[in-house]
Amino acid sequence: MVVVMKQGATEADIEAVSERVRGLGGEAFVSRGQVHTIIGLVGDTERFHAIDWKQLVGVDHVIRIGKPYKMVARDTHPETTVVKVGTTPVGRDTFTLIAGPCAVEDEEQTMAAVEASRAAGATILRGDVYKPRTSPYSFQGLGERGLEILEEVRRRTGLPFVIEVVDLHQVEHVAEVADCIRIGTRNAQNFELLKEVGVANKPVMLKRGLAMTVEEWLQAAEYIAQRGNSEIILCERGIRTFEPATRNTLDLAGMAVAQAESHLPVIVDPSHAVGKRHLVAAMARAAVAAGADAVMVDVHPHPEAALVDGAQALLPDEIVELGQQLAAIATAIGRELNR
Amino acid sequence: MVVVMKQGATEADIEAVSERVRGLGGEAFVSRGQVHTIIGLVGDTERFHAIDWKQLVGVDHVIRIGKPYKMVARDTHPETTVVKVGTTPVGRDTFTLIAGPCAVEDEEQTMAAVEASRAAGATILRGDVYKPRTSPYSFQGLGERGLEILEEVRRRTGLPFVIEVVDLHQVEHVAEVADCIRIGTRNAQNFELLKEVGVANKPVMLKRGLAMTVEEWLQAAEYIAQRGNSEIILCERGIRTFEPATRNTLDLAGMAVAQAESHLPVIVDPSHAVGKRHLVAAMARAAVAAGADAVMVDVHPHPEAALVDGAQALLPDEIVELGQQLAAIATAIGRELNR
Amino acid sequence: MVVVMKQGATEADIEAVSERVRGLGGEAFVSRGQVHTIIGLVGDTERFHAIDWKQLVGVDHVIRIGKPYKMVARDTHPETTVVKVGTTPVGRDTFTLIAGPCAVEDEEQTMAAVEASRAAGATILRGDVYKPRTSPYSFQGLGERGLEILEEVRRRTGLPFVIEVVDLHQVEHVAEVADCIRIGTRNAQNFELLKEVGVANKPVMLKRGLAMTVEEWLQAAEYIAQRGNSEIILCERGIRTFEPATRNTLDLAGMAVAQAESHLPVIVDPSHAVGKRHLVAAMARAAVAAGADAVMVDVHPHPEAALVDGAQALLPDEIVELGQQLAAIATAIGRELNR
Amino acid sequence: MVVVMKQGATEADIEAVSERVRGLGGEAFVSRGQVHTIIGLVGDTERFHAIDWKQLVGVDHVIRIGKPYKMVARDTHPETTVVKVGTTPVGRDTFTLIAGPCAVEDEEQTMAAVEASRAAGATILRGDVYKPRTSPYSFQGLGERGLEILEEVRRRTGLPFVIEVVDLHQVEHVAEVADCIRIGTRNAQNFELLKEVGVANKPVMLKRGLAMTVEEWLQAAEYIAQRGNSEIILCERGIRTFEPATRNTLDLAGMAVAQAESHLPVIVDPSHAVGKRHLVAAMARAAVAAGADAVMVDVHPHPEAALVDGAQALLPDEIVELGQQLAAIATAIGRELNR
Repeated sequence: MVVVMKQGATEADIEAVSERVRGLGGEAFVSRGQVHTIIGLVGDTERFHAIDWKQLVGVDHVIRIGKPYKMVARDTHPETTVVKVGTTPVGRDTFTLIAGPCAVEDEEQTMAAVEASRAAGATILRGDVYKPRTSPYSFQGLGERGLEILEEVRRRTGLPFVIEVVDLHQVEHVAEVADCIRIGTRNAQNFELLKEVGVANKPVMLKRGLAMTVEEWLQAAEYIAQRGNSEIILCERGIRTFEPATRNTLDLAGMAVAQAESHLPVIVDPSHAVGKRHLVAAMARAAVAAGADAVMVDVHPHPEAALVDGAQALLPDEIVELGQQLAAIATAIGRELNR
Repeated sequence: MVVVMKQGATEADIEAVSERVRGLGGEAFVSRGQVHTIIGLVGDTERFHAIDWKQLVGVDHVIRIGKPYKMVARDTHPETTVVKVGTTPVGRDTFTLIAGPCAVEDEEQTMAAVEASRAAGATILRGDVYKPRTSPYSFQGLGERGLEILEEVRRRTGLPFVIEVVDLHQVEHVAEVADCIRIGTRNAQNFELLKEVGVANKPVMLKRGLAMTVEEWLQAAEYIAQRGNSEIILCERGIRTFEPATRNTLDLAGMAVAQAESHLPVIVDPSHAVGKRHLVAAMARAAVAAGADAVMVDVHPHPEAALVDGAQALLPDEIVELGQQLAAIATAIGRELNR
Repeated sequence: MVVVMKQGATEADIEAVSERVRGLGGEAFVSRGQVHTIIGLVGDTERFHAIDWKQLVGVDHVIRIGKPYKMVARDTHPETTVVKVGTTPVGRDTFTLIAGPCAVEDEEQTMAAVEASRAAGATILRGDVYKPRTSPYSFQGLGERGLEILEEVRRRTGLPFVIEVVDLHQVEHVAEVADCIRIGTRNAQNFELLKEVGVANKPVMLKRGLAMTVEEWLQAAEYIAQRGNSEIILCERGIRTFEPATRNTLDLAGMAVAQAESHLPVIVDPSHAVGKRHLVAAMARAAVAAGADAVMVDVHPHPEAALVDGAQALLPDEIVELGQQLAAIATAIGRELNR
Repeated sequence: MVVVMKQGATEADIEAVSERVRGLGGEAFVSRGQVHTIIGLVGDTERFHAIDWKQLVGVDHVIRIGKPYKMVARDTHPETTVVKVGTTPVGRDTFTLIAGPCAVEDEEQTMAAVEASRAAGATILRGDVYKPRTSPYSFQGLGERGLEILEEVRRRTGLPFVIEVVDLHQVEHVAEVADCIRIGTRNAQNFELLKEVGVANKPVMLKRGLAMTVEEWLQAAEYIAQRGNSEIILCERGIRTFEPATRNTLDLAGMAVAQAESHLPVIVDPSHAVGKRHLVAAMARAAVAAGADAVMVDVHPHPEAALVDGAQALLPDEIVELGQQLAAIATAIGRELNR
């Protein structure tokens, strides 16, 4: 931690800061510059953070050195983590395709989307039964009945499922069916929910909030890890910007930063990022080329009749073609598509 | 609703759209332009929205006419709503000062902040016991013990309190002490929580999410209103932008848009918007001049020792001075400070 | 300047940085922390900035202390500057209303807008003859003929004019008529133009670029000041954000930050910030209450026929009413409207 | 164009709008909805745009159908354009690597960067002599002397150069050496400069402004096309968002939208988008996988001593390795690297 003094700070001001540091059992290193004097604080950082140094006389501002997350940081865990969803590994050494319906509408629609996903090479499936919707007048998910459908599909295909929860009450119940619990973008800073999945005995996929910096995203993951669950998959899904041509702006560099800063697997959801079918495949290809550990895409057999996000769902033929492209790009950069 | 056809759309495409409209019991008005043909849809809008028209052959895009919210819309409720917090009215005719500690730390700190707030003219108090914090290593609130302190302070001062809830479990319990329940920026699209406060028998203050458009904010309010609770106060508290000099960017025009679009009272929290003490008073003054129905500010007797957001808390002297300025500006624009 | 070393940096790495500092005639103060070692650099900052320290082995990142601007900084010029436009002072002690047509369309429209502005208390006029337009198919300004009209209006009213330039060729010519030259938001980082007005013998109004941080805005002002012209008025006019309800998001806190960081007068243009007539007056009131040194608003006698930005222009009656409100708020906060 | 009437609009209001449309030689198609009546305008769109319909009594808002650009639109020119820079084609059928120094510092540095670029497979070179810098205290480019170096390098390598201009005075002069003139992000709405390159007899590379929507970017290109120069290459280079971990946020979906909306080639500059060396290669790979027509990257033999943007420049070894990766990904998606 570095305390930067104001231009007019006096020796007494500097000494007062140093005294406070020593009182906390630390050491203060003073560098007297021509304009600003700065004080380097060495000792127990936690104790230093508890003080609002800006409030001391003569202090201009304070600079934090070091990261506000620990358990998910790559600095302290240089080896990357592989999270197993069912038997499918998600991590830096392989590349995984996750696909399926955005929302479960009925058994037929779900099965059709799942079959196409499997044919495309997907080894993890998606399908939601609780949908957080901006408008209260939109379809909110099948709930219980949806879970039954997913259980049946899972039995038939043998493939693991990732399913979203939107409230902490649902965690235990959804975890009975899901192989991985997902926390959506609007709940990415719902800290009570983060704490709850932190004690669930299932992998967690944590989407980035649409106004979250990468640093805040990793702090949200820290909430989960802190409770004992370190089976976390981070999922970039676009951030909110001024550009109206796409639903959100896919931040692939943010994905790459998260991979550099954290040991956790980081994946990309191009469907929700762009919201338009004709752009999804291009962004999925970009994600694998950028080094994403997986991509997750929406599939729907009849998007014109979809109850949720039909405009972004790939058709069965399209997901199969995309699967081939992703495998080819993965090979070109020395990774193998998980099968 | 308007369906815009692609440049190359055929007569058959146009007829197919029209046919579909008629099938839904509506009428289709076709305007054949030189470049684009557009089709105006007249009938039951709800039924039209259920169709993903973009999926039909020859359709370029679809334009929604009308607002995605109803119960909170001013169009349909031209008279503005006055929400009573305790006995204090919040609405377009008066101007209210809400003040108090950001977080309850102990009885002494709370009482000192409250006394200064009252001296400044505050007629509603704030003080939180559950704090949603970006970092899991930050102070998370006093919880139960904090509620006891607030109850005691309320008894002594006779002033009503607004208190934040961060999970739906807390609603019933907090509502026993609170005169108004607050939903914070990170939970503004926690739809399960919105539904829960929708059935609580208390006024609700709904902060704008930091990446929410005004339209989405009003849709979140609609979730509450839809359940039967229309005692809603909207609170602008800054949106996330690229500017790093302030914590967020206070969007006073967004506040004014919400007032124009909705019949609900709309207030401003300058403290959390800017995050820096020396800017809070200026933004509070701006808010009242822009027509905000109330402003809510943080007060702390010893901000240098604050456990949460000390950097933005006004000192007791400062809130008293601000109270006078706000009253003077309110008078200058023909409003009176609630007393 | 502070150099933060990586966690695994060796003593040799630290010594190499220190050696480099000494080679530049400076001193290096080393604080060895538990995780990161930091090095405070003391000496000639300019020489330090020329080095890309991040490239040295063992360096994690570099933190600049101090501001990237000097001549416009309040730190080094604590007394605030009053800029005279014609005989009208713009600065912290007074409050000035600037009004007039967005674009000069003809003499009648200009004169009508100017008369209303004068009646409202405006002591500086606006009116442009070169318009930077997003679309090449939009009206681009009257040019030469417009300047003649402005000259005539100025002769008749005796009031000074602020006029925009969009290319460095125009500076000399426009400066013959203008009392203040304006640089618009799209040219705020057109550095060649900034340099040119830096040698013009006229005050300059520099709008904030719509994606510029306050720090970058002050650096743009520094370009002008560096050439010898310190008669600079900064003008906040909204920044680009995700909110579509207004054209831009008016950043009044950014205005206040610019006032704190710089000795220059800082004013607000609510018309271009919001782009909608019914919000302009509220934002103008907010600006004066926040402490802006002036507000500048568009006026048009027949906005439905305006060639540019009619939707945001106030009607003659509206500007007169607004003038009264601004005067009342100015009085309420202890400032006087310039007359 | 569609005019949406207010809820309370009268028959007379509707008739007044229709009358106005007919007065402009057009036809008005009225669809009377339950809530809103909408009027479709058919006829000469240009004439309709000149009217500010929002100003008419009873009008709520106006919706533009159709695009605000024509000459660069794919709608009207379905065949995509191939721009030749020297003898190197840039377009949808091939993939081109553009590389070289960010700024020309001296002959040795330039030649070293160019040799590495050529070894990597670059068939177009970059190198600037005029640099628009945020701070007036930063290196502003070698100017004239730099052009001489570039001329010599071009003679030796036989490869074409793309060179930035920052003012319209430079266009003619730079065009003598450059095979393609570049307009940087800060000048992307410097309309006078756009007009000037519109009459230059050289291809133009137009970077996207850092706060520009894709639609505005295409309108800027329209300024150039309108003057007769349709040899335009669009270059995505990141937009400004709230995320501080990268300099800007690379908007690859924006690139894909520009390709869908325009017939012009669209390329990506990952170096300036992210500003950090360790992310550049990942984003370059993503760009080619997303379908970019070229990528342009900075190279520097000694980035620690670079006068501009050293932190983002690839080392000679790195560009060579990247060239191989890009070629492999291009092949995987059925494109060939230009050689």
